[in-house]
Amino acid sequence: MGLVLIPEEIALERTPAANHRRAFLLVPAMNLDFSKAGGLVTAVVQDYRTGRVLMVACMNEAAFRQTVETGYATFYSRSRGQLWLKGESSGHRLVVKQISTDCDRDAVLLQVEALGPGVCHEGYQSCFFRRLDSGQWRVAEERTYDPKAVYGRNQ
Amino acid sequence: MGLVLIPEEIALERTPAANHRRAFLLVPAMNLDFSKAGGLVTAVVQDYRTGRVLMVACMNEAAFRQTVETGYATFYSRSRGQLWLKGESSGHRLVVKQISTDCDRDAVLLQVEALGPGVCHEGYQSCFFRRLDSGQWRVAEERTYDPKAVYGRNQ
Repeated sequence: MGLVLIPEEIALERTPAANHRRAFLLVPAMNLDFSKAGGLVTAVVQDYRTGRVLMVACMNEAAFRQTVETGYATFYSRSRGQLWLKGESSGHRLVVKQISTDCDRDAVLLQVEALGPGVCHEGYQSCFFRRLDSGQWRVAEERTYDPKAVYGRNQ
Repeated sequence: MGLVLIPEEIALERTPAANHRRAFLLVPAMNLDFSKAGGLVTAVVQDYRTGRVLMVACMNEAAFRQTVETGYATFYSRSRGQLWLKGESSGHRLVVKQISTDCDRDAVLLQVEALGPGVCHEGYQSCFFRRLDSGQWRVAEERTYDPKAVYGRNQ
């Protein structure tokens, strides 16, 4: 019934480097509703300092658990069908500062410190770099890094 | 091909009361990817002043179009299988100030002015009123209104 093991002393304020696993608790960890979207919940990622919404992704239960356990945002990639540690190849990890859930528990909000110049694989600070302007989507900001330089070396 | 009619002079900065429909344009209005989630995209709603994330919902193409056309956030209710004008019964409508989409166009971000004391049908300012705290979801704030007083009168 959604019971998982998570470290008793997990502190989301701390980076994973400070994460010890001496004790575990059985907690009704999720109470998240994974039933509406085929085992997934929506995860909204927001910069914890500026409030900017950086990206939206999906989490299955394993991704959520890994996020809580490690302190690094981990999603479920629908296209690849596997867990996706954000920043695994780019180094642009998301250090989770706070996690909230909504009234019907089918979405989570991660407030994060985003490591690196940008979250978006296209080179922008946020994936939401296009705004609706007179009926057209327009790029509303400059790239903060060159995605070829970051992702090219691992391809 | 996702072409829809939207008013040429639609101005998301203005309230729908100022919305005239004298001219229409054929625009590649969406370019949104409704294929990943059965005809839906994820809609994240954020207070345009404070940056607080208020709720997450789904939109089908009709909901998105209605949102753009009217300036009021309209979603698709999966449970009811129909369009859902947010605030229709409570009066707590969301006046859309800006719309962004993400890199893969399967999510939109609505920056809104939220009318009324709260967005959440449980009486909170934001649906994200529960925070993960030592492995437990805890209510982290006070209600801003009495949901029975708001929703009861229409039931």
